[in-house]
Amino acid sequence: MTHVISRNPATGTERELAVIETTADAVVALAERAASVAIDFAWRPLSWRAELLRTMADELEADAANLVELAIDETALGRPRLEGELRRTAFQLRFFADVVADGAFLHASIDHAKDSPMGPLPDLRRLRVPLGPVAVFGSSNFPFAFSVPGGDTASALAAGCPVVIKAHPSHPATSQASFDALVRGARKGGAPEGLLGLVFGFDAGVALVDAPSISAVGFTGSVPAGRALWTRANARPTPIPFFGELGAANPLVVTPAAARERGDEIGAGVAGSMTLGVGQFCTKPGLLFIPQDPSGDALVTSLVEALRELSSMTMLSEGIADHFRSGSVTIAGVDGNNRLVGEGNEGTSVSAHLFGVPATVFADPSSTALREECFGPLAIVIRYLDRDDLETALKSADAALTFSVFTSSSHDEDASWLIELGQSKAGRVIANGFPTGVGVSWSMQHGGPWPATTNSSATSVGASGIDRWLRPVTYQSVPEELLPEALRDGNPLGVAQRVDGVAR
Amino acid sequence: MTHVISRNPATGTERELAVIETTADAVVALAERAASVAIDFAWRPLSWRAELLRTMADELEADAANLVELAIDETALGRPRLEGELRRTAFQLRFFADVVADGAFLHASIDHAKDSPMGPLPDLRRLRVPLGPVAVFGSSNFPFAFSVPGGDTASALAAGCPVVIKAHPSHPATSQASFDALVRGARKGGAPEGLLGLVFGFDAGVALVDAPSISAVGFTGSVPAGRALWTRANARPTPIPFFGELGAANPLVVTPAAARERGDEIGAGVAGSMTLGVGQFCTKPGLLFIPQDPSGDALVTSLVEALRELSSMTMLSEGIADHFRSGSVTIAGVDGNNRLVGEGNEGTSVSAHLFGVPATVFADPSSTALREECFGPLAIVIRYLDRDDLETALKSADAALTFSVFTSSSHDEDASWLIELGQSKAGRVIANGFPTGVGVSWSMQHGGPWPATTNSSATSVGASGIDRWLRPVTYQSVPEELLPEALRDGNPLGVAQRVDGVAR
Repeated sequence: MTHVISRNPATGTERELAVIETTADAVVALAERAASVAIDFAWRPLSWRAELLRTMADELEADAANLVELAIDETALGRPRLEGELRRTAFQLRFFADVVADGAFLHASIDHAKDSPMGPLPDLRRLRVPLGPVAVFGSSNFPFAFSVPGGDTASALAAGCPVVIKAHPSHPATSQASFDALVRGARKGGAPEGLLGLVFGFDAGVALVDAPSISAVGFTGSVPAGRALWTRANARPTPIPFFGELGAANPLVVTPAAARERGDEIGAGVAGSMTLGVGQFCTKPGLLFIPQDPSGDALVTSLVEALRELSSMTMLSEGIADHFRSGSVTIAGVDGNNRLVGEGNEGTSVSAHLFGVPATVFADPSSTALREECFGPLAIVIRYLDRDDLETALKSADAALTFSVFTSSSHDEDASWLIELGQSKAGRVIANGFPTGVGVSWSMQHGGPWPATTNSSATSVGASGIDRWLRPVTYQSVPEELLPEALRDGNPLGVAQRVDGVAR
Repeated sequence: MTHVISRNPATGTERELAVIETTADAVVALAERAASVAIDFAWRPLSWRAELLRTMADELEADAANLVELAIDETALGRPRLEGELRRTAFQLRFFADVVADGAFLHASIDHAKDSPMGPLPDLRRLRVPLGPVAVFGSSNFPFAFSVPGGDTASALAAGCPVVIKAHPSHPATSQASFDALVRGARKGGAPEGLLGLVFGFDAGVALVDAPSISAVGFTGSVPAGRALWTRANARPTPIPFFGELGAANPLVVTPAAARERGDEIGAGVAGSMTLGVGQFCTKPGLLFIPQDPSGDALVTSLVEALRELSSMTMLSEGIADHFRSGSVTIAGVDGNNRLVGEGNEGTSVSAHLFGVPATVFADPSSTALREECFGPLAIVIRYLDRDDLETALKSADAALTFSVFTSSSHDEDASWLIELGQSKAGRVIANGFPTGVGVSWSMQHGGPWPATTNSSATSVGASGIDRWLRPVTYQSVPEELLPEALRDGNPLGVAQRVDGVAR
């Protein structure tokens, strides 16, 4: 019986929590319990499901003061950020309530029986049904928004799936208290007991991916952990979909015209974006493509000065800080790469790091260390001579979550090809803005081609996050009274339906 | 240099074709050529892309007489079936032209900048873009509809993806001629050269999945081949999505009330469905759940008599016939299983086989051989005593593509729970009909949970087949003139857009 330890990364203080690491048997039992209520939960009215999500949001907010204190202690992220994150998390639950109530996510489609060049076609009606219990792996860097009460949980519940959550070891007390708030909401809403589960410990996470009753996995975290669990999900006797958001080295390009126009301003802005949340964002701009000319020099000077003014920062855990340090050492060791900013660090305390290389060095196949994400306040300035130099370097970069382009406010001949290249390389293309804000909305895409995620068709933020937890079923010639309500003639639920090929 | 051989399964005649098996280098080159035109193709107007698909349909039909002769020679499936299949295939290309023109598949969504509880949100616009070159593996059993000019090719082109096709070895001449028709259509339509590629040979198929320029795979075929290629797609340095439709042992349930009402009729109908196309359909009803009572006995008698009246049939190839024979021997060897119909077979010639077991034998964990698909005209009658007996047996069955339920035409107390169980076990639930017709339409789902497919969220028939070849991209604060047209204010393309959360 191993008690779970809560650590304060700023002070190093540790305390033993009442909860213990979950045994493999207990994990399987929680997954089975979730599966036992899956059908009940799946077929309750959409209006009830939406209200349940709103009740959970209320319960989170009711405990906000306590939750934020716990998170400050466990993450060192600071009150304003954590208060904002909790607000976002409650908003996200309510947003998914709206997505559920809207009903378009069902993709309801009705084809009445008819003749066709293939011969007569029967009555066919299709909608998407929940997959079953979803395993959610909380992230280290967002103790609320991408953890226990976060987007994966909200979207899975919205889809009609029970959820079993693996708490991240860097904030177990916050995880337990958030979970308790969700459970209070579930009980108030009259949800079946067992709809939600929470497990602690590395082995419990592995057991969760293996648990036969689990139907899909949502994961936010590191590339090695994500790949290992993805492989495991594929190796099950019955493989299950694994949606891993693994982070990225996100390109940010400044065109020569933009650097001439407002290089100082962009340099200062980049310093803020790359160190926001101690650089512990998977959307951190890590690869900065800057022209090799006097305007580019001025931009880099402004960036360097802004970074030097920052005091040292506390990372989420000693493990993450160690990883950051070893990553920066590897990057520093690449031939042709120069350190521009960054000194010694100790324990969980780190300072911002900046490196500089010519684009040709970056594009060299041997410079893989420059192309991998280094989680933390670190970026690499890549200086390019001309469009060819820039294009070659950008094409050599891995796919990413985001791709940012700074252009002149008047006509900029580089804008068009950069936006086009960006959309082939990332899930989100940003013009004249920083990638570190990921708003919850209908049109957000937080994902991207491999290696940024394990599944480029998925998003872990925004309305379409619900798509991950659904599969279509077609009902052929099934009598009206046995059909799901969303597929009935007359549309009693008032959801979007495509009828005989025409969207209504 | 190995020439490709075309074989007539009915006569055993072989002829050497002019084409040779494709080398690994040639496969890589075809994939690279496809990738080199991917962006050009992706961004042509939707109206042009729709017209291209229609022109391809026209070219297929213009060569119908020749194509059908070739297919008769190579598959022994017979003229009426093959003429119908070619009609279906041309219809399918035109159907996907309609899906393209409709534009809803883009999932265009526009959120204008606004304030939110998370703070100000920027302008966010999301749509789905093509993945890039798709590898398509033609099936053995549908030389047109699931082969070179089939649903995977049509849907990938509709999505805006170039296609490189692996011809099935059982109908290479048909594959080459169908490909030539598509290429004529592509040239008439002014498509970029290299949009379509065709490869022959086992090794070429493996090389195609490995080819770095390939972005996704569509596969229809056997479980062993599909699993091997799926594993290979996952093991690439950059894994790619693999959509495998692997076939299934599809349950068909007759309730006691239905057996009493019209057992004879159902028995005769089952005989037709399980032997249609020599049972070489992945939707063949292979597991027949029949009540153990006098009405059930009468149904089985009618089924047995109908099967005995059938003459012997020619399978698609000697390999498939050998596999069918060895599968039927394995099934015959299961303790408690009785052969009801089926005699010796030779070469590609086979007769229908029917076995019978009590539900308890089927549900026994040791009876795995009964739960696996046996491709060909073979089914297993599973006799159940009551609802519990039936439910246990059904739950022990693997997930499948289809789940058929025959109920009484008046109220039937078993209808509701069977439909509900069916939708948890299959991609399509059919009431009082046979699963062997899979119409191309907006509401068709041809897929299902593992092991029926490698991806339960996908379909390989119907409008949603296009979803497999797309991934979303969000454009943040991108100026109007640099946005894809489908995301512009004023909706110049007239496609479905969700604007500020409201579907238009």
